Amino acid sequence: MKFKGADILSTKLFARNDIEKVMRVAGRMEPFASKRKLSDILQGKILAALFYEPSTRTRLSFETAMLRLGGRVITVPAMETSSLTKGETLFDTGKMVQNYADVIAMRHPKEGSVTEMAEGADISVINAGDGPGQHPTQALLDMYTIRKEQGKIDGLTIAMAGDLKFGRTVHSLCYLLAHYKVKLIFVSPKELKMPVNVCEFLKKKGVKFSVESDFDKVIKSGVDVLYCTRIQKERFENEKEYLKLKGVFVLNKKKALTGKKTMTIMHALPRIDEIATDVDSLQNAAYFRQARNGVAVRMALLALVLGKA
Amino acid sequence: MKFKGADILSTKLFARNDIEKVMRVAGRMEPFASKRKLSDILQGKILAALFYEPSTRTRLSFETAMLRLGGRVITVPAMETSSLTKGETLFDTGKMVQNYADVIAMRHPKEGSVTEMAEGADISVINAGDGPGQHPTQALLDMYTIRKEQGKIDGLTIAMAGDLKFGRTVHSLCYLLAHYKVKLIFVSPKELKMPVNVCEFLKKKGVKFSVESDFDKVIKSGVDVLYCTRIQKERFENEKEYLKLKGVFVLNKKKALTGKKTMTIMHALPRIDEIATDVDSLQNAAYFRQARNGVAVRMALLALVLGKA
Amino acid sequence: MKFKGADILSTKLFARNDIEKVMRVAGRMEPFASKRKLSDILQGKILAALFYEPSTRTRLSFETAMLRLGGRVITVPAMETSSLTKGETLFDTGKMVQNYADVIAMRHPKEGSVTEMAEGADISVINAGDGPGQHPTQALLDMYTIRKEQGKIDGLTIAMAGDLKFGRTVHSLCYLLAHYKVKLIFVSPKELKMPVNVCEFLKKKGVKFSVESDFDKVIKSGVDVLYCTRIQKERFENEKEYLKLKGVFVLNKKKALTGKKTMTIMHALPRIDEIATDVDSLQNAAYFRQARNGVAVRMALLALVLGKA
Repeated sequence: MKFKGADILSTKLFARNDIEKVMRVAGRMEPFASKRKLSDILQGKILAALFYEPSTRTRLSFETAMLRLGGRVITVPAMETSSLTKGETLFDTGKMVQNYADVIAMRHPKEGSVTEMAEGADISVINAGDGPGQHPTQALLDMYTIRKEQGKIDGLTIAMAGDLKFGRTVHSLCYLLAHYKVKLIFVSPKELKMPVNVCEFLKKKGVKFSVESDFDKVIKSGVDVLYCTRIQKERFENEKEYLKLKGVFVLNKKKALTGKKTMTIMHALPRIDEIATDVDSLQNAAYFRQARNGVAVRMALLALVLGKA
Repeated sequence: MKFKGADILSTKLFARNDIEKVMRVAGRMEPFASKRKLSDILQGKILAALFYEPSTRTRLSFETAMLRLGGRVITVPAMETSSLTKGETLFDTGKMVQNYADVIAMRHPKEGSVTEMAEGADISVINAGDGPGQHPTQALLDMYTIRKEQGKIDGLTIAMAGDLKFGRTVHSLCYLLAHYKVKLIFVSPKELKMPVNVCEFLKKKGVKFSVESDFDKVIKSGVDVLYCTRIQKERFENEKEYLKLKGVFVLNKKKALTGKKTMTIMHALPRIDEIATDVDSLQNAAYFRQARNGVAVRMALLALVLGKA
Repeated sequence: MKFKGADILSTKLFARNDIEKVMRVAGRMEPFASKRKLSDILQGKILAALFYEPSTRTRLSFETAMLRLGGRVITVPAMETSSLTKGETLFDTGKMVQNYADVIAMRHPKEGSVTEMAEGADISVINAGDGPGQHPTQALLDMYTIRKEQGKIDGLTIAMAGDLKFGRTVHSLCYLLAHYKVKLIFVSPKELKMPVNVCEFLKKKGVKFSVESDFDKVIKSGVDVLYCTRIQKERFENEKEYLKLKGVFVLNKKKALTGKKTMTIMHALPRIDEIATDVDSLQNAAYFRQARNGVAVRMALLALVLGKA
């Protein structure tokens, strides 16, 4: 991939050496992300953060990445209250915003919408999540976290647990992991299984994966990485069923300690109660560090698409 | 007009050489607006963008203009959810905001409200649209666009089409064009005619204008500039009437090609369906360039009122 | 108090020499607050302004303070529309935001909530108002204003008038004034008296105070400072009672002139009609200057907690 000027729409478009490049540049961004050093490589550049649905976490992470590299930000925190939505096509909006900014980070509830704006805008558009579609920067920061916590990606056994059906994050991550020699375990209630199209993709790429339903057993089996996701009430017709399943997929300290001692515990946050707070004290509870890695990875992407990495 | 420290409330206050000055300074701002050069002439200055009704387009244009000149921005994207509206007078709000910012850009749904804040604030206040009142920066960027596209303003025949009754943009523009030797053609449904007070102003200034109702005929007559505006459903009591008229005033490529080859096609955006997308490919479709010119013109105004042009 | 890295949660935690330090540093910040000089002592630092309820005034004051010292800002103007509120604990939010910013200014409708976030975040958290709880930066700017207007604090007679029950501002102020040799007069309707816990605190500290109900008499008695607060309709069950009392506590020019000639008139703003606009012209009407002092005081606090004062 030629990063300069590129749109970052989907993890499906990343080859292994694209992923490696992002992780390498992100590594160089760490001193700036962690506030130890100042940078102004993006001086004079403007990021437009266009959020058609609010996602404060992702927005602040992008804005911080831009500011810590010396750039500036214009922002629309909640586009639904914006005149931009009054009938104009996303293509036209892209044509307009390209006059203001040098790069766009965009979140939208509808799949494909980010691509539509990217077609209008002559500047790089980064997908910050488009509904059930993709969330490439989250997947890249997840990869970076796995690499940083485990020292490698090839050879790992990675379990994804919880709601694998609606969890856009784990889908995006699978497309990236498909370039590595990993073993994947999908553990979820039968109502919330990993979608067929993701499984088909993995098969085609020759990635080994197994489907499980017993959360506790998977942990005990000695996985290297446990990626937890939240099971949302609104996915179930029957509240009883929800409550039963929810409880099964809660990770607490006692359960975590039945796993491998070096098992990296991940979560895209926010967590509600699917990971108990007593897990926080474990050295391998990586979810807060994972959030921090998001700044370095987004710095890397911004620098790359602006040709300043 | 002495620009330094001035409030920019209405285009009625502009003399011909004020307009010329803004266009001249805007021309010098082009390399910075188009991202080719960096400037920090407004370093240490703060713009307060106070939007009592959301107008993402105008807000981002002002903020970009400020940031690209090295200034900084504090912003209230949607004042209705703000404590500022809890009963305080705009005069008092002005007294407060002058402590924070060096210049204010303000949008408000009520005519005259920007003037009220300007009376309280000792710093420059720029009207970013006050209801059915004025939108001077839009009119100035329209002038700049006409000049840039046509190379001159004197001698041109300029048609304004669509909703001329509620279109604050075309009213503000008429007050500026009145200082030039132009011929104006107003073409609209009879329900949406140019208001009497604007026509009276033009008569007093000796500007030639005619009122037409046949959109197609006006295009064919060979106008130099065609300024389209949107006809909004909510202006009509009768939906049938609306649908009939709307269709008549749609510009498509076929219709556009019946006009003068050099006819500049303008629109303040957003366009919904009043200009078909097949018009976009015409070289003289200027509406996206027009949006871009907004940054240079707002840069010019900010620099002028802050005494840094 | 060691300011560097400290959380600024409550004025109760301030000793006399902490207050003096903030006022001293705020004094040095005046040339930057008043736009006469540029500073970049906070270059590379980021303030996260997290407003769980909108308070445009306080937010813009904090953001201005940060920008005028060369820092940058990420902002959530109205958190209720934010995903941050979807069930995540404030502790977790703090853990996340510390990855982005160097300091947090937070407003929340619930007392104690700012403390909860401060426990999660390893960076300094400044309370920008937590419901009926504390508003320490307002109290500090009030102290600064009294000192600046009167040249001293020890020896003054200070009256607080209006709604003393729900007025978080006057509570926070009392905790600071308790470190000085002042005489306090509380004048309010009997339904809106200063709470017992504040009075008990003052007694324990040996601060002289009296409780009055006749507003006019208190003014005539020759107080040095008159701090007015708004009486809100929603505090009364009976509208008639509200209207009667409201009228009694309105300050107009005529009434103000019955006081000491040097009586400093203060108000946290916004004022609705509890201070008539004819008071504005009095030299000792200090409320607009008071708002301006907020920038210098917040600059001082930001610089102090970031170790750059």
